[in-house]
Amino acid sequence: MNTVNIASKFSMIEEFWSPRIAGELNDSYVKLAKLKGEFVWHHHENEDELFLVVKGKLLIKLRERDIWLEEGEFAIIPKGIEHCPVAEEEVQVLLLEPKSTLNTGNIHNERTKTDQWI
Amino acid sequence: MNTVNIASKFSMIEEFWSPRIAGELNDSYVKLAKLKGEFVWHHHENEDELFLVVKGKLLIKLRERDIWLEEGEFAIIPKGIEHCPVAEEEVQVLLLEPKSTLNTGNIHNERTKTDQWI
Repeated sequence: MNTVNIASKFSMIEEFWSPRIAGELNDSYVKLAKLKGEFVWHHHENEDELFLVVKGKLLIKLRERDIWLEEGEFAIIPKGIEHCPVAEEEVQVLLLEPKSTLNTGNIHNERTKTDQWI
Repeated sequence: MNTVNIASKFSMIEEFWSPRIAGELNDSYVKLAKLKGEFVWHHHENEDELFLVVKGKLLIKLRERDIWLEEGEFAIIPKGIEHCPVAEEEVQVLLLEPKSTLNTGNIHNERTKTDQWI
């Protein structure tokens, strides 16, 4: 049962779009990710996903509209909803999602990552 | 699918020790609570609970030791572990826990709250 300093963990992350596990509770992981550029359109078949912006400004494109998240704001993308995160500048984001969640959801490509603890 | 500004939600909370629901995902709620003073010793039989300090400094007393959480730090209290949060000064905390979680855990007293959305 450790305390986790979010800023300290982020200082150890070098790779973009590679979520790192910072905590686990119940059936979920807390993950930290640095984002820059545009990700891939995807959805998660069975998992709702929380994005909490710790630093920067994140665009989450949906098929019908855009969501903008500033520092200290969060949004929850329900299961099944296609989304594409875009970070014009570097963004630090805290994710909360079931352990079964794959970063690229229904898509498997070179951006698919096996999440590791940090 | 709304964006939630955490500071804005906190500005609407007046009562201490009365968590308000700010989001739901999977089987869990994201809750926001203002804390001041000492709570009650309790545990949650089946639920791990995440405390993320947004503002202030939180002491979580455990039977064996103390945990101190500063702003931008989180800790996860596993199910079954007795704990007692203490806020010498006002603390703003984001909680993540299963929907079944009662704020006072195994204790039912005048501090037990039925959580409402904010």
